[in-house]
Amino acid sequence: MVIKDPAMKEKQPYKAFLERDIKTIHDLGKKGIIEFVFKAHEAETQEDFNTITTNWFSKAMHPYFKKLCTECIYKPQLELLDYLRANGFKTYIVTGGGIEFVRAVAEKVYGIPPEQVIGSSSKTKFRLKEKKVDVCRIGELNSFDDREEKVVNISLHIGRRPLFVFGNSDGDLRMMQYVLSAEGPRMAMLLHHDDAQREFAYDRDFKLSPLNDALTVANDWGILIVSMKNDWNKVFAFD
Amino acid sequence: MVIKDPAMKEKQPYKAFLERDIKTIHDLGKKGIIEFVFKAHEAETQEDFNTITTNWFSKAMHPYFKKLCTECIYKPQLELLDYLRANGFKTYIVTGGGIEFVRAVAEKVYGIPPEQVIGSSSKTKFRLKEKKVDVCRIGELNSFDDREEKVVNISLHIGRRPLFVFGNSDGDLRMMQYVLSAEGPRMAMLLHHDDAQREFAYDRDFKLSPLNDALTVANDWGILIVSMKNDWNKVFAFD
Repeated sequence: MVIKDPAMKEKQPYKAFLERDIKTIHDLGKKGIIEFVFKAHEAETQEDFNTITTNWFSKAMHPYFKKLCTECIYKPQLELLDYLRANGFKTYIVTGGGIEFVRAVAEKVYGIPPEQVIGSSSKTKFRLKEKKVDVCRIGELNSFDDREEKVVNISLHIGRRPLFVFGNSDGDLRMMQYVLSAEGPRMAMLLHHDDAQREFAYDRDFKLSPLNDALTVANDWGILIVSMKNDWNKVFAFD
Repeated sequence: MVIKDPAMKEKQPYKAFLERDIKTIHDLGKKGIIEFVFKAHEAETQEDFNTITTNWFSKAMHPYFKKLCTECIYKPQLELLDYLRANGFKTYIVTGGGIEFVRAVAEKVYGIPPEQVIGSSSKTKFRLKEKKVDVCRIGELNSFDDREEKVVNISLHIGRRPLFVFGNSDGDLRMMQYVLSAEGPRMAMLLHHDDAQREFAYDRDFKLSPLNDALTVANDWGILIVSMKNDWNKVFAFD
């Protein structure tokens, strides 16, 4: 976008991303970052966006672990997904991240096909051009898939109340409560990132995506807290 | 609603539905009817709506065939769905009808689970009340799943371009063109209701849901027209 219009270099939040100004980016908040991401990928077709994302994932390195992002995947999470599927569960990702972004990698990395990914979405529009129909992204937020909105989107996409949920932040609390609010066997688990040695340790003070309210009410709602440090034998497959 | 507020009896479109005034109902158009339906089911939870709908379907008779609505299902459609699934296809319904309405019956009748139904939807909201989370309907349109909007919704729910599509009205033309607008083997079929003897015969002049544009461009786009009269051995299983 900056190549097309150099004046954007001086505009926020573009300037912050170009200059890797983490402080300013952080202050945008989770929703502000998602809105920027959608703006930056305006007008692309669904298939073009998928190609760009797949290419990006094929090279993107994690700055801390110095591994491909697609390798920084929790081994116990993969084992749990396999276990659920082996027992007849249909597994979904419900993410605050971009729905098409996560869809591009979910099948390869988690064995979850695109139609079983729910996430934040940009508005899109139908385009008929030169006898070809495409779906194009509009640089505007359609849904910010966080907190209450996760429940609304599960209802829209899945159409029934899930039986089991695993989350790791306050953004997941509402869907945990949704899963637990009905009769029959139901289960909600919450990952606590408390392992500074093998991963990271953070919870109530992480402003961008805190784990605060969920920790507070977990016991009262019967949400099982999983400690990365104490309960996970291995964190990553590469460990 | 009329029991709660008798004044509604005199208000349109409520009056028309209460008096079975088909002319006025017809003039509302497909979208107007959907909007009324959503208004009439405001405030219900997802599960309550499902119960009401399931009960309704257990008794609802087709006024012309004098059979349960759930029996008025095309036999060749069931055979095609079975054939596709036996060959590794994941089958979806993409309907102009209410998404939760069709979901209540799709698995039993078509073998299609709720999460593989896409349709017109009302807005919904998260509710936390007496330590119970529910999703409640708001009496407002979220998406009218017709024409271009079907393509946008397929993109949101499925996240990739389908390979095969079967439709029966102009409301399906855009998704047929979407399916056909990419490389590789792809197929679109269009049912022509031309069998006044065993079902009905209508196309260009049916105002509520015409088959006009799609008939006109079918040949040019490579859409295969299926004649109910000439191509279908049986129409209903009860024939």
